[in-house]
Amino acid sequence: MANDGGDNMEFGYRQAGVGLDRADEAVHRIRRAIATRPSQAQGLSAIGQFAGEYALQPGTTLLAGADGVGTKILVAKAMGEARSLGVDLVAMNVNDVLASGGRPLFFLDYIASQRLDPDLVESLVEGMIDGCDQAQCVLLGGETAEMPGLYAPGDYDLAGFAVGLKVFDGTPCQVGDLVLGILADGFHANGFSLVRKIVQDSQLDYHARYAPIGNMVLGSALLKPTPIYVAPILETLRRLPAAVRGMAHITGGGLIDNLPRALPQHLGVELDRQHWAMPELMQWFQQLGALSFEEMVHSFNGGIGFAMIVDPRLAEPVVSLLAGFKLKVEAIGTVIESPGVHWK
Amino acid sequence: MANDGGDNMEFGYRQAGVGLDRADEAVHRIRRAIATRPSQAQGLSAIGQFAGEYALQPGTTLLAGADGVGTKILVAKAMGEARSLGVDLVAMNVNDVLASGGRPLFFLDYIASQRLDPDLVESLVEGMIDGCDQAQCVLLGGETAEMPGLYAPGDYDLAGFAVGLKVFDGTPCQVGDLVLGILADGFHANGFSLVRKIVQDSQLDYHARYAPIGNMVLGSALLKPTPIYVAPILETLRRLPAAVRGMAHITGGGLIDNLPRALPQHLGVELDRQHWAMPELMQWFQQLGALSFEEMVHSFNGGIGFAMIVDPRLAEPVVSLLAGFKLKVEAIGTVIESPGVHWK
Repeated sequence: MANDGGDNMEFGYRQAGVGLDRADEAVHRIRRAIATRPSQAQGLSAIGQFAGEYALQPGTTLLAGADGVGTKILVAKAMGEARSLGVDLVAMNVNDVLASGGRPLFFLDYIASQRLDPDLVESLVEGMIDGCDQAQCVLLGGETAEMPGLYAPGDYDLAGFAVGLKVFDGTPCQVGDLVLGILADGFHANGFSLVRKIVQDSQLDYHARYAPIGNMVLGSALLKPTPIYVAPILETLRRLPAAVRGMAHITGGGLIDNLPRALPQHLGVELDRQHWAMPELMQWFQQLGALSFEEMVHSFNGGIGFAMIVDPRLAEPVVSLLAGFKLKVEAIGTVIESPGVHWK
Repeated sequence: MANDGGDNMEFGYRQAGVGLDRADEAVHRIRRAIATRPSQAQGLSAIGQFAGEYALQPGTTLLAGADGVGTKILVAKAMGEARSLGVDLVAMNVNDVLASGGRPLFFLDYIASQRLDPDLVESLVEGMIDGCDQAQCVLLGGETAEMPGLYAPGDYDLAGFAVGLKVFDGTPCQVGDLVLGILADGFHANGFSLVRKIVQDSQLDYHARYAPIGNMVLGSALLKPTPIYVAPILETLRRLPAAVRGMAHITGGGLIDNLPRALPQHLGVELDRQHWAMPELMQWFQQLGALSFEEMVHSFNGGIGFAMIVDPRLAEPVVSLLAGFKLKVEAIGTVIESPGVHWK
């Protein structure tokens, strides 16, 4: 399998297309380490979730997650672009909090580089503010570290942390519930080590325009930031509280690893791949890399950015409401009795 | 000035001994970026603080901070040690939340490397659990990222994030208040780029034993984890609520940059350097690097790990209480009318 950068694992440990064995082993080790400490039982319950839950007071539960943007950083570096990556960093974190039923409250960042570049920091922070505004949360703090000897000149890494307030618990999913998928508009911030490998193997130029993507500049198309689903999803939960039964942010590990997290363990989904199309950019990379459909929905988001499990009787108003936010939504499958992701 | 890894800046933007111009400029840019967005006013107020404040509900304020461990990572790598670094990562974050008056609730981590190493991850997580147990908080989640092309084989970076509940607001400091310093037991997790430079320039071997540090192995002495001050300080606040008027976690930027944060802008401190001694290890490195006292208290913690501004009438019971936690405390100075740090 190809190598996938970014969230190979997460507490809510998610695995990406690659390093699967290593990720499995690491999760096993972490689970074991935490399980031996009764003091840390609350942390253990967070493994496998999109965000960790912390019961602050009766009726007040906080949700928190940590995430990065993987090696999308290296594409941004090649393009001399950083602001959109700041948006990605916020998106990766707040969408996870959202999928766990949280309204994002605040966000913090970590920027590490060999040598502090004020222009870079400013662009990244501008992007994070853009993201926080979209997520209706506050950029509350951060750390910028100079790490000579660890990063190569011009290289940097980013980590983000988001905290939210739990506002949605979900009715248990049932067999026959509908899976609604919000169509992705690109790779978002996952699978970029594989994306970069395909660019390299195909001798593509990030700065060139290519016909299969409507003559867009490749680097710009790849850097399109991950959408922040906070406003439309919170509005859906507010206006149609009985409709939504579960949510999944489709990141590292794709539909295969992320959809089951929205479901109880004894249920699964049957998806119909005829019901949606991947974005042009993703279809083109599938051809270039000679990747199977299975790889596209495991190493990448497979064309779905966020999924909801809904009461089939209320699917129509959910789709209309999201359309009002200019989100394209398709019914991509149904909940079935057999755990995991199955294909029609 | 020498180069200092780690927290050159923080929201709560702190500057380390080096890259001061770059750090100043970056803070200026971030301040400007945030100031132009009314939606982000709450974040702006966090700049210059140890942790950002978020008013969740009337009477419930959250505190959150992000921090790393700088290039102490490279010393740990050289020694094949990771568990103590997990403790450092928690310490750097929870002590910041503590200095802002917060009781830590939970912690999250970000571990990035070229290739996931389950043994490394396990050691780091064991250390983080040790740290979270000491800080009486929960390891709630994290992210482990594989970043081929960004990190060299065997290298990794760490970021941590802590959230606490504000339990202490402090009486305003007054002229004549006493500055109590908790003696540091080493470099903690700051100034390691300068430490590494001195090791290199002096041709020291991390694995060798040296007489000036009581024949300890150099690498082990350097890797001693940052103390977690949560239990003793929370006990002090509980038992002697009227005694403490301000607190400072002495990290990047040393006493010079961190003490003023515990004070209102119009006040400063006068310190008496005769009142405490730096640890042997630090004294030795001062000689090796031919560093001035001023550099020791700006690039390093200067021998003070955590400081408290206290009512002079209640200093005695505070010192006794902390002694019960095996912490050595000295009265290192007093609050004066002139802003900044002055020397007797």
